Amino acid sequence: MVDGLEKYFTIRYEDNIVKMLDQRYLPHQTRYLSCSDYHQVATAISQMVIRGAPAIGAAAAYGMALAAYRSNAQNHLDLMADLDKAASVLIASRPTAVNLTWAVKRIMDRVKSLPSHNVSETTRIILEEANSLAQEDEQNCQLMGQNGASLIPVNANIIHHCNTGALATVAYGTALGVIRAAHEQGKHIHVFVDETRPRLQGARLTAWELQQLGIPYTIIVDSASGLLMQHGKVHLCIVGCDRVASNGDVANKIGTYNLAMAAHVHHIPFYVAGPSSSFDMDARDGTAIVVEERPDEEITQIGGVRITPEGAEVYNPAFDITPAKYITAFITEKGVIYPPFGEHFHGIITH
Amino acid sequence: MVDGLEKYFTIRYEDNIVKMLDQRYLPHQTRYLSCSDYHQVATAISQMVIRGAPAIGAAAAYGMALAAYRSNAQNHLDLMADLDKAASVLIASRPTAVNLTWAVKRIMDRVKSLPSHNVSETTRIILEEANSLAQEDEQNCQLMGQNGASLIPVNANIIHHCNTGALATVAYGTALGVIRAAHEQGKHIHVFVDETRPRLQGARLTAWELQQLGIPYTIIVDSASGLLMQHGKVHLCIVGCDRVASNGDVANKIGTYNLAMAAHVHHIPFYVAGPSSSFDMDARDGTAIVVEERPDEEITQIGGVRITPEGAEVYNPAFDITPAKYITAFITEKGVIYPPFGEHFHGIITH
Repeated sequence: MVDGLEKYFTIRYEDNIVKMLDQRYLPHQTRYLSCSDYHQVATAISQMVIRGAPAIGAAAAYGMALAAYRSNAQNHLDLMADLDKAASVLIASRPTAVNLTWAVKRIMDRVKSLPSHNVSETTRIILEEANSLAQEDEQNCQLMGQNGASLIPVNANIIHHCNTGALATVAYGTALGVIRAAHEQGKHIHVFVDETRPRLQGARLTAWELQQLGIPYTIIVDSASGLLMQHGKVHLCIVGCDRVASNGDVANKIGTYNLAMAAHVHHIPFYVAGPSSSFDMDARDGTAIVVEERPDEEITQIGGVRITPEGAEVYNPAFDITPAKYITAFITEKGVIYPPFGEHFHGIITH
Repeated sequence: MVDGLEKYFTIRYEDNIVKMLDQRYLPHQTRYLSCSDYHQVATAISQMVIRGAPAIGAAAAYGMALAAYRSNAQNHLDLMADLDKAASVLIASRPTAVNLTWAVKRIMDRVKSLPSHNVSETTRIILEEANSLAQEDEQNCQLMGQNGASLIPVNANIIHHCNTGALATVAYGTALGVIRAAHEQGKHIHVFVDETRPRLQGARLTAWELQQLGIPYTIIVDSASGLLMQHGKVHLCIVGCDRVASNGDVANKIGTYNLAMAAHVHHIPFYVAGPSSSFDMDARDGTAIVVEERPDEEITQIGGVRITPEGAEVYNPAFDITPAKYITAFITEKGVIYPPFGEHFHGIITH
């Protein structure tokens, strides 16, 4: 099926330039940003030109490829020093999604495994590895879509939070990929799109993607979910994840926890979709996950228009932690995982 | 105590003009709108120049006074016809808050009780009754403040939704009046201000009022309440109400129910403050309350800036219904009411 989304790409490496669709301008403009060094990539991640755990993982991998390409190192040791520096900068660009660390570590592990210490050969292999990672991300999304679509009824009203589509990944999407797969199977899907304050990724990005895909949707404010559930209008919720702890606690966009509590109260299934690269087996539980705080202006201004009084105090956490007990199942590229999660992750999540 | 808020008033009747602080321009501008007939008052209510259940009750009462003053009726029957028409228009200006109906009915009951059928005398008495209603609203808020302040700990972090302060009433406020009374008693209060999408009454109006009053506050997005509660940062929630059904179900600003569910999950007290005029003993439960749907533009645009894709579908309910079981107690001018509400309302709520 050809759809409107195929005209666009989220991220691509071409001629030693990382090109990204600049998500700050969507849905009104489709502009691409070109990064020619890893610092620009890190800035793009931190300013949310590109966002979504899988997408920023790919961006970090390509950032490492740029770091290698732009390095003036004449020998392996100097190259490794440059790569270590780039790794630190890229990992620090945003703290919560584990995919950044995962992607950078994957590149570094590959480099460390090389028998040859030839600088240009290493540089070539880093790009090869980044391209593999990006390709696998797309394949994983397709698999998640297939695995998850089986959980979606033939007629389904679904609440979706934030953006987890093609824009949040290299292509296709995680939670939105599941919705897309169900739609492609001919199921009758309608999505209630949480607008997702403060940055409105739902109202801006998810609405735009669903429009391109021809999937019916309705935008709501984040706090309208309870009313819809009370009226029996919601069959399930599905969200993505920025980091899953080893016990199944989930860090995801602020508001995920409130949605999960509402679903719990109404006995509505609450699914979390994400690639195994978003699982952090080193985090014992949600308390081990750093929740990023972002600038006040995301709340005090919208589209450059000031909302709040001058001098207003603001607390702007970008993520929250949903305890494992509120999650019906995880949808991964390796299958659907049910509770008890700690036990069932073993053997499935391996890194 | 003199504070910054005393410079302003929410609504006032002077020289046969109803003047209202135009809340659409706050916090950036303090402009007043003058209404010289009841149609203008109804439009001001429906466009939310003035909002908040008690404040629109007072506005409707003054609208009736304008209707009488502007009537060309030469006899009682013609005046009654004009008043009936005004009553319908004012009641229809917004459907959910019961205070509109209550205020208009109070005026009409007073008129019907008059022994004299003198048109100018009736006109004078309608204004007198509207002024009484407004004065009582202010007194009731003071009483609610005193009754509610006893429930607030000496050190309290409070989540507050929407705006329930001086701007939502004739003066002082309902839920925010309770917060204000506790602050005036020297308690150490900090308010987490739900920004309250879509119209941002929290970020715009409540933040402005708290700033004028010198009460410390922090603005959050509505869906951050769960994270704060999880971190033990919230001691109680307090909200207002647009209509309370006879079983204790509450219609209030969209997002109230989601906040109540989060408080319930975390065993945090959830208080509802409102004058007895917001209680509708004719509504058996929440299902009997009409939830107003408002224009798409409240969600698709912010400050005139378009957020969503062109053609996006939107669902914009202005209120939700919080079931009685999630409410710890009601704070009214007549005292604090604990469950079982249906039983305890009897004898306290009398109209």
